[in-house]
Amino acid sequence: MKDTEKLQKIRHTLAHLTVAAVRAIWPGSQNAIGPAIENGFYQDFEIAGTVTDEDLPKIEAKIRELLPAWTHFEKKEVTEAEALKEFSWNTYKTELIHEFATGGKTITFHNAPGLIDLCKGGHTEHPNKDINPEAFKIVRIAGAYWRGDKNNKMLTRIYGLAFDTKQELEAYLTMLEEAKKRDHRKLGKELDLFSIRDEVGPGLVLWHPKGTIIKEELERWGKETERAWGYQRVSTPHITKADLFYTSGHLPYYKDDMYPPMKLDGDEEYFLKPMNCPHHHMVYSARPHSYRDLPLRYAEYGSVYRYEASGELFGLMRVRGMTQNDSHIYCTQEQAVDEFVNVMKLHEYYYKTLGVHEYHLELALRDPKNTKKYHGDESMWLLAEKLMREAVARTDIPMVEEIGSAAFYGPKIDFIIHSSIGREFAISTNQIDLFMGQRFGLKYVDSDGKEKTPVIIHRAPLGSHERFIGFLIEHFAGAFPVWLAPVQIAVLPISDKHLEEAGKVTAYLKTLGLRAELYDQNESIGKKIRNAELMKIPYLFVMGDKEIEAKKIAVRQRGKGDLGIQDPAEVVARIQEEIKTKAL
Amino acid sequence: MKDTEKLQKIRHTLAHLTVAAVRAIWPGSQNAIGPAIENGFYQDFEIAGTVTDEDLPKIEAKIRELLPAWTHFEKKEVTEAEALKEFSWNTYKTELIHEFATGGKTITFHNAPGLIDLCKGGHTEHPNKDINPEAFKIVRIAGAYWRGDKNNKMLTRIYGLAFDTKQELEAYLTMLEEAKKRDHRKLGKELDLFSIRDEVGPGLVLWHPKGTIIKEELERWGKETERAWGYQRVSTPHITKADLFYTSGHLPYYKDDMYPPMKLDGDEEYFLKPMNCPHHHMVYSARPHSYRDLPLRYAEYGSVYRYEASGELFGLMRVRGMTQNDSHIYCTQEQAVDEFVNVMKLHEYYYKTLGVHEYHLELALRDPKNTKKYHGDESMWLLAEKLMREAVARTDIPMVEEIGSAAFYGPKIDFIIHSSIGREFAISTNQIDLFMGQRFGLKYVDSDGKEKTPVIIHRAPLGSHERFIGFLIEHFAGAFPVWLAPVQIAVLPISDKHLEEAGKVTAYLKTLGLRAELYDQNESIGKKIRNAELMKIPYLFVMGDKEIEAKKIAVRQRGKGDLGIQDPAEVVARIQEEIKTKAL
Repeated sequence: MKDTEKLQKIRHTLAHLTVAAVRAIWPGSQNAIGPAIENGFYQDFEIAGTVTDEDLPKIEAKIRELLPAWTHFEKKEVTEAEALKEFSWNTYKTELIHEFATGGKTITFHNAPGLIDLCKGGHTEHPNKDINPEAFKIVRIAGAYWRGDKNNKMLTRIYGLAFDTKQELEAYLTMLEEAKKRDHRKLGKELDLFSIRDEVGPGLVLWHPKGTIIKEELERWGKETERAWGYQRVSTPHITKADLFYTSGHLPYYKDDMYPPMKLDGDEEYFLKPMNCPHHHMVYSARPHSYRDLPLRYAEYGSVYRYEASGELFGLMRVRGMTQNDSHIYCTQEQAVDEFVNVMKLHEYYYKTLGVHEYHLELALRDPKNTKKYHGDESMWLLAEKLMREAVARTDIPMVEEIGSAAFYGPKIDFIIHSSIGREFAISTNQIDLFMGQRFGLKYVDSDGKEKTPVIIHRAPLGSHERFIGFLIEHFAGAFPVWLAPVQIAVLPISDKHLEEAGKVTAYLKTLGLRAELYDQNESIGKKIRNAELMKIPYLFVMGDKEIEAKKIAVRQRGKGDLGIQDPAEVVARIQEEIKTKAL
Repeated sequence: MKDTEKLQKIRHTLAHLTVAAVRAIWPGSQNAIGPAIENGFYQDFEIAGTVTDEDLPKIEAKIRELLPAWTHFEKKEVTEAEALKEFSWNTYKTELIHEFATGGKTITFHNAPGLIDLCKGGHTEHPNKDINPEAFKIVRIAGAYWRGDKNNKMLTRIYGLAFDTKQELEAYLTMLEEAKKRDHRKLGKELDLFSIRDEVGPGLVLWHPKGTIIKEELERWGKETERAWGYQRVSTPHITKADLFYTSGHLPYYKDDMYPPMKLDGDEEYFLKPMNCPHHHMVYSARPHSYRDLPLRYAEYGSVYRYEASGELFGLMRVRGMTQNDSHIYCTQEQAVDEFVNVMKLHEYYYKTLGVHEYHLELALRDPKNTKKYHGDESMWLLAEKLMREAVARTDIPMVEEIGSAAFYGPKIDFIIHSSIGREFAISTNQIDLFMGQRFGLKYVDSDGKEKTPVIIHRAPLGSHERFIGFLIEHFAGAFPVWLAPVQIAVLPISDKHLEEAGKVTAYLKTLGLRAELYDQNESIGKKIRNAELMKIPYLFVMGDKEIEAKKIAVRQRGKGDLGIQDPAEVVARIQEEIKTKAL
């Protein structure tokens, strides 16, 4: 905590230094606001002149030049009139001074050598000692409207990074570089996995053939695994009468996140489903149940639609239409903790298989100060939380608590995955739900002959295809393990005279169920290899005179390079084994 | 044609005979209208007394008693006043006479022995000779409002069947009986396959776990087959901006069949997709294509929503939400006929595997008198028809032509399947489409370096899951072949002391990927067998002392009965082989 505070002060101070530097280089430039932000700071200007990316090292150098003289800040209280006089050359500060002085308040300056600045404080005490001149960097220029209002003037925003040590700065720069290379939007396009088209609508994903392979392999794996773990599959429509969402409480508690209604058959309102729960409850209630049926686990890859503001949308990570690895488990209260423990084990199995080892749980609780956001009675909330804590206590997964982010009908536990480039993704939401069973009048006849309400467990270990595949693209940097790779083997004839034999090999690999692609373009073998490597294909089979004569193939493996001449049957057997075991 | 006309006359005459019979049994009864209908006739009455199902044989006997005297009808023209006087006892005929006589028209009676009736004609000339007394049957009573208006009095409607021969009547009665037993709505409920709930909405299917198995097995088969046939899978959202449907022409040409719009982000209208085509075209246009890529076959199990009037909805056969075995093939004009022939071969492969041998093609053409319904220019329509006819000429599938039922953008070919109970289902629609490629600006670079527009073939051999499974339920009378059966093996312990061993066998069968269910209810073995047979489970494994001791099982096969004591490994191998070969 202390460290963070110190860093914030360093970053804020650097924004002031940027003002001094920019005004030294482009005299007459007007500075606007300049806060500390995550990993650094920015400072807005109306620059007297032109600034380009090429000027950034100049600004950085000027800051380093000024830094030794900045031994401390001098704080000064002035009247509105004095302040206005001092900043008569600066329209932005003038505007701020008028605002800050309402009600006759005095104005605070923080001055440093060569800089008089309007500021309340929050700087490091001795900039020359506290700021490591090797641990900051001016990185980027952007446009930004004064006060974020597009009716105002567009200013120039200069971004900087700042850390305690040179090593931290370098690590962060490396991470940024890696993040850019792994960006799922960039890789999604390069690897031809998906697109989001303006003609279709923002946040609505079109999965191309190669992306659909990943989606369907995950789905197949999910179905096989969940079958072995005792789930049954159901399948439900994407729209529903409004009444069902009144029963569930989504209307009104979740209405802002839902698509607007469609009016049908006169006045009947239909909604796109934002969640699959109410439909699964309808399947449950379609016939009577006995305690002998429980636990009953209904699973569906269900497509749901949620209205996200267009500014919130981000590639596959935040979308409007998503297909969830969803399930609802109906069980007795006595079975609930065991079932929830199994759900967490299922998460661990999935994540381990994919080589995802960094994750934690987030227990999302009610905000006791804002009870209007929540449904249901006190004892239910307490019991649900107790049961979930009991289950979590039986695992080794670390957990943090988050006040105010519970669902409207109960507390929830999110699995937060840490990506290889330092981002965190909330992948899966889980709940022990004591509320919806009652709302939907769900029943089972217990061994004592009495009617009881089942507990409902909500879970989605693989989250939505969209966010999970977005995560996996960045996790694997597009180099998917063989079982998930859209193309598993590229067959590369050295020249056109080897095309026929290469075609036969490709066809044969396909009959084995392998995803093989023939590179039949009229290009050099070097170019073909580079193209296949750019597509991050795990195995390349190169075929020329020598290989064809010997009934062998030259194999290149992604990440390992040339494996030399190999027996095709042996290589294929190895690849099939990798697929079967989901080798990483 | 002649036969149908004669039958219509016989049926109409029988309605008159029903009047005579009912008035003989319940004097004072007022007859209203009584037309010939498909397979028979009905006659409406205000009956002076009470009539129940038990009276039906009495009415039938009375008709047979009257018939010999009905040698002919006597036609008589009368004035309105004469007619009103004759029917002063009958409020319904009085109303009709007033109507018929407007403008001073004369009224026509057709009288037979003991019956004076208001009628324009259309009877058989010699009822006593023309009507076979063994070929008709009075079958049912229903209520019906006078003139179909619920503000009017409820009348009693008596339904009869009538054919030329006793054999035809009996065949029809058998078919009715069979149809009732095979009705997919009845079996769907009994076998716990699906439900349609008022809470969710009419025409929206909830697939229960057992129905989902059938759906997913079909889907898996479709995906495997289509992969082998050179298709690639894509996956697209269920909603889209209105603009895309203006481009496709669905708006305005198909608007009545679409769900109403949702307004988003201000004024942007989004629609649920009624077809997958526009989305597949978006995937196609996401990157440039060369002639080397073609044919490119994009396939998707796509869920679409169409607005059907609630009165049109019928079980799984006519729904509002459906998931289609859809695909669009993008090819050159030279490839189109071959591709279309392959599409028809794919249909034949699917249908043969399922034991569906009775089907024909329906070529749906424009109505030249109503060109406003259609888009596109003359030469396109002619060429599309020519290419499709060329392809059909290369198959042995019979074809009929249907004027006026083309799609708005081109002629189409429907596969019409004949069900085992004599119904016909339009399962799959196919097209060679020269229109949409242009509308969407789709391109490929041909071998001559020029940009050209691909031909698009639309196809869906397995139709929608909804209609196809509805058909399959009736086709198999719920007794699905092993590979499709929701439960493949029921394991039945003779008594509770065999429960543990039976549980182990069930678990073992599951590890082999077989769908086995343990019958663990505390019931007699006879009851368990009957229950499993009612669920139409293909194999029953019965386990008692004798079997457990000998490490054998007693096997019962659906349709074959008791197969005696068997070696479990051998039976399992046989079942696995049946699944693998999709044996019927």
